[in-house]
Amino acid sequence: MKRITLLIVAIAAFAGAVALTARASRHANQEDTPTYVTEMPAGYREWRFVSVAHEEGNLNSFASVLGNDIAIKAYREGTLPFPDGAIIAALHYKFVPSAENNKAFGRDQSFVAGAPTNIQFMIKDSKKYAATGGWGFGHFNNDGKKVDDAFMKTCFPCHQKIKERDLVFTRYAP
Amino acid sequence: MKRITLLIVAIAAFAGAVALTARASRHANQEDTPTYVTEMPAGYREWRFVSVAHEEGNLNSFASVLGNDIAIKAYREGTLPFPDGAIIAALHYKFVPSAENNKAFGRDQSFVAGAPTNIQFMIKDSKKYAATGGWGFGHFNNDGKKVDDAFMKTCFPCHQKIKERDLVFTRYAP
Repeated sequence: MKRITLLIVAIAAFAGAVALTARASRHANQEDTPTYVTEMPAGYREWRFVSVAHEEGNLNSFASVLGNDIAIKAYREGTLPFPDGAIIAALHYKFVPSAENNKAFGRDQSFVAGAPTNIQFMIKDSKKYAATGGWGFGHFNNDGKKVDDAFMKTCFPCHQKIKERDLVFTRYAP
Repeated sequence: MKRITLLIVAIAAFAGAVALTARASRHANQEDTPTYVTEMPAGYREWRFVSVAHEEGNLNSFASVLGNDIAIKAYREGTLPFPDGAIIAALHYKFVPSAENNKAFGRDQSFVAGAPTNIQFMIKDSKKYAATGGWGFGHFNNDGKKVDDAFMKTCFPCHQKIKERDLVFTRYAP
């Protein structure tokens, strides 16, 4: 009986040590590498409209920015910082001329959303994403291509430039 | 007593004639002048997102197109013609460069929604708006300026150019 008790104590001690080590390494990891959003929030295509944007150049993008209920409420009430639970989604499409619209107008002037390219998210969780201003950044390519850490590391430094609006560039369109 | 009866009959006949005339003139009117949307549908800013558009030139506009539940369902299921009750709203803003975005990007490439300019609606009611393909067209300027009939008469002939999609230019962005 004594032997078995000893064995159980030894196993428990070992398990505890393993758990502690794992916790410590996870903690170190959290400080080194910012945590990104790895799963798309559900139901984002049903969210309400915040605003639109267009980027020229390499991006050549058309964006529609949507917000979940917490984000929309904060936007409308001018609440800063955004409360935990707020999520902002930027749905990106190619910025393409519309041949059928131009034909109807009788001149080349119309641009519409082409193929979807990627969706970006900002999720507010002041504890989980403390290292990046309380925001978790996510980027999901529509072609299924994974985004690497080097790319994701560029989100926070750029968004930090708009600290006065809690790292959110997009303003609410009335 | 006879005199009073005669008077009543005369009054009734006169009233009947007036009513008939009014109805006839209203009917003629309906055929001459298309019926437009004169009141903004309630709650449109809560509707779901359909797509974005940009027009160059004089319009220089940025549009976000939203749909009520019936419109969104029809869009997603590819239902044509759109069923009665469908409403599509185009929220128009000025297409303006964003100095703060450009500064963050380090180059001039960013355009955002500026001041709101007008909101346009298409309301499907195949009976009420039979004269204009079952769609009622509405245009509301954000500065409160009324839109005249001459302007409103241009909606239907242009939208008729896209008969194969039930007069709706905007395609659903996934």
